[in-house]
Amino acid sequence: MINTSSALKIVLENAPLLGVKNVSLLDSLGRVPSHDIIASQDLPPFNNSSMDGFAVASSNLRRASAKHPRTLKVIGESSAGRAFAGKVTSGQVVRVMTGALMPRGADAVVPIEKVVECETERVRFLESPKPGQHIRSRGEDIRRGQIVLKSGMPVTSAALAVLAACGYSRLRVRRKPRVSILPTGNELVGITEKPKRGQIRCSSSYALAGYVEGAGGIPKLLGIAPDTKSRLRKGIKAGLGSDVLLLTGGVSVGKYDFVGEVLADLGVEIKFWKVNIKPGKPLLFGKWRKVLVFGLPGNPVSTSVTFLQFVRPALLKMCGWQDVQPMTFSALLDHDFSKSDGKRHYLRGVAVQRKGELRVSATGSQSSGAMSSMVKANCLMIIPEDAATLHKGDRVEIEFL
Amino acid sequence: MINTSSALKIVLENAPLLGVKNVSLLDSLGRVPSHDIIASQDLPPFNNSSMDGFAVASSNLRRASAKHPRTLKVIGESSAGRAFAGKVTSGQVVRVMTGALMPRGADAVVPIEKVVECETERVRFLESPKPGQHIRSRGEDIRRGQIVLKSGMPVTSAALAVLAACGYSRLRVRRKPRVSILPTGNELVGITEKPKRGQIRCSSSYALAGYVEGAGGIPKLLGIAPDTKSRLRKGIKAGLGSDVLLLTGGVSVGKYDFVGEVLADLGVEIKFWKVNIKPGKPLLFGKWRKVLVFGLPGNPVSTSVTFLQFVRPALLKMCGWQDVQPMTFSALLDHDFSKSDGKRHYLRGVAVQRKGELRVSATGSQSSGAMSSMVKANCLMIIPEDAATLHKGDRVEIEFL
Repeated sequence: MINTSSALKIVLENAPLLGVKNVSLLDSLGRVPSHDIIASQDLPPFNNSSMDGFAVASSNLRRASAKHPRTLKVIGESSAGRAFAGKVTSGQVVRVMTGALMPRGADAVVPIEKVVECETERVRFLESPKPGQHIRSRGEDIRRGQIVLKSGMPVTSAALAVLAACGYSRLRVRRKPRVSILPTGNELVGITEKPKRGQIRCSSSYALAGYVEGAGGIPKLLGIAPDTKSRLRKGIKAGLGSDVLLLTGGVSVGKYDFVGEVLADLGVEIKFWKVNIKPGKPLLFGKWRKVLVFGLPGNPVSTSVTFLQFVRPALLKMCGWQDVQPMTFSALLDHDFSKSDGKRHYLRGVAVQRKGELRVSATGSQSSGAMSSMVKANCLMIIPEDAATLHKGDRVEIEFL
Repeated sequence: MINTSSALKIVLENAPLLGVKNVSLLDSLGRVPSHDIIASQDLPPFNNSSMDGFAVASSNLRRASAKHPRTLKVIGESSAGRAFAGKVTSGQVVRVMTGALMPRGADAVVPIEKVVECETERVRFLESPKPGQHIRSRGEDIRRGQIVLKSGMPVTSAALAVLAACGYSRLRVRRKPRVSILPTGNELVGITEKPKRGQIRCSSSYALAGYVEGAGGIPKLLGIAPDTKSRLRKGIKAGLGSDVLLLTGGVSVGKYDFVGEVLADLGVEIKFWKVNIKPGKPLLFGKWRKVLVFGLPGNPVSTSVTFLQFVRPALLKMCGWQDVQPMTFSALLDHDFSKSDGKRHYLRGVAVQRKGELRVSATGSQSSGAMSSMVKANCLMIIPEDAATLHKGDRVEIEFL
C-alpha cells in the first residue's frame, strides 16, 4: 500500500502528453496550446485616444485655466477607424473619439466633458493637460514578441480576446483524451432497466463521464461487464483502444474481484494497487503501451474521490496543463473530527464564508456508499495521514469541487 | 447613472426563465432541471454488505473472542448481483461480497481479514460483532420521495450518479440561451484580416463568446457592424432573433456612438444607460419583447467585467439557476489602493494562498484597454463605492474567475 502522494507521482510520470490538433480560435477555449504563444504585434497597435474629446499639443495649453481659458481651432476629426491625415500645429486641435489614432503633433487628449465648444469650429480649454494624458500608447499593453500565453496554460475567455487581437484565427492545441469507462459487477443493470432482487443500476460510470468532461476528456461509456474473466477480458480489450481506461469495481479482495488478474493477463503493467487513502483504498493503476488503466473502487463516493485525486490530474497533464492540481484553501473546521487509521482522508464538505473566514463542515454521512454527501458537498476536506484528532476551529485544507 | 446593485437587480427582474427541453442524462450535466427531482426509490435499494466477509447473526457470536473463538458453518454465498436464497440460523454464516444483499437472519458482517477460514466450510471468529456493523441499510443514503436535486441547482457529476441510480435516463432541463454578439465600430476588422492604419482586429467578441459558453449559453458571432445607423439597424435586427443580444462599443458619448439611438428607434425599451462602475460605466441595458439587450463598452476589459457582473447572472437565471452570483472570498490586499470617484471598482487580481491566508494583488495596469491584466488575473477584486483609501493588509472581497 503506497501513500497518496507517491501514487499521484507514479500516475503523472506515466501520463503521456497527447498529440496536437489545429483548431479554430473559439474551439481552443479551455484547451492548452502546444507551445508558447507570442504576440505577433504591439497591442494596442498604435497610439490612440482613450476618451472622446480633443487631441492637443499640451505645450499649446500650458497656461490654460478656468480664469484664463484658451480657445483653439478644430481642424479635423480622428474617429475610430478613420484617422486624421494631417498634423496638429500651434493653435489647433483635432476632435478625437475613443480608440482613434492620435494625430501627429498631438500629445494629449482633453475629454469632451472638460471643454466648452463655443462655435462650430472653436473649443475653449479651461485647464492645462498633462503630456500623454488619455492616450493609450502603442505596445503599452503587450509588446510584439512577448509571450501572451505560456505553454501549459489553458486558453481562457480573456486570452481569446488577446489572441484575436493578434490575428490568431487557429491554434495548435493538445487533443482531448478519449476515456473509456467500463463498469464491472454482476449486480449492475443499465439505467433504463428495472433492477431485480439484489441488483442496482449502474451509477458511478455516469459520475465518471461527467468528471471526464469537466477535465477536458471525451468520455465513452462501455457496456457493463459482469464479474466473469471472459466478459471482463472483452470489455477491457475494447477499452484499451482509448487513451485512458477507467474500470469501476472488481478491485477489492472479494471472491469475484477479477479486475487485477485479468488486466495482468492482458499484459497491463500494474504500477500500484491499494493506496493509503479513504475513501478509495483498493485503487489500482496500470499501463498498457501508452494507455493508462485505472481500476477505481465501485462505490460511487470512492470512484469520485479517486477520480478527482488521480485521474483528473493525469487527464490535465495529457491535455498539456502545467498545473494539474486544484488550488487549495485554508478553512476553519466547524466540528471535531478524529481518525486512527493513518490514511489520508477526503471528507465531503460544505464551505461557506462567514465574517471574512472560510468555514467548512462535513456533509453528514461519510460512508463511501453515501453519494448524497457528494451531491451536497462543494468541497473536499483533506485530512493528512498523520492527523488523528482535529478540533472545531482547527485549520484544514480544502479543494473546491 | 445608477449603482451596480440596482443595475443588477433591474437586469435580473427582466431576465425570463427559458423553456424546457428533454435531454439525456449525460447531456443534463451543468444544466438545471425545471423542477425538484425526487428519489424514485430508496438508496441503497436493499440492506447490503459494505465489506467482503461473512454475514452473521450477531447473537451467535456474542461471546466470541481471540481467547474463545467460535467456529461457524458456511451455508452459502451472497455476492453482488447473486443473492443467497436461504436464511442464516444458529451456528451458520453466509459468505458475502461488498454490495451483496444481506441474507435473511443475518444482522452484521465480519470482514474477511478478521476471521480464520479453517476448512472449506468452516470459519473461526475471533471477536464479537456489533449488530448492524458493515451493513448499508436500505434508504440510509436517500429515502424514496426525498428531493435529490432541488430546482434551481445544476446537475453536477456527483448528481449524475444519484440520478442514474434512480433510473432517470432523461431529464427536463431549461434550454440554453442563444446569445448573439454584435461588435460595432468603424475601426474593427475580422481576425483573419490585416488591419490598415488606425484599424484593429475585433477581439472583445471572442472573449464574450467564451464567457457565454462558460455561462451555459450558445454564442453566435454576428458580423462587425460599422458605426452607421443603417448598418447597426441591420445587425441589431438580426440579433433580436436570439434570447440575448450583446453589442460591444458605440455606447459612449462620442459622435459616432449610435447604439442607444438605434436601439430606441427599433423599439428596444432602454432600462438603464450608465452604471456607477469602473471599468464599464457606459453600460446600456434594454429589452425588446423577451429579448435582453446589453450595450457593452468596447474596451475588452470593460466588456469582460460588465459581462461577468451583469450578463452572466442574467444567463444563469434564464437557465434556471437559483444562485446566480459567484461565491466571494475575503482576501488580504497586498498593496495600497485609492480611488476618489465614488464608483464601484473591479480590479483584476491574482490571489494566492500563503500561510493559510488568501492574499491578492492587482495585475499591473488597470487601464480598461489592458487586456493582458485580465489574462493574468485569476480573480476580480471588488472595491465598494464608498471605499476611498485601502492599505496593504486590508481585507477585500474577491471573485475567482
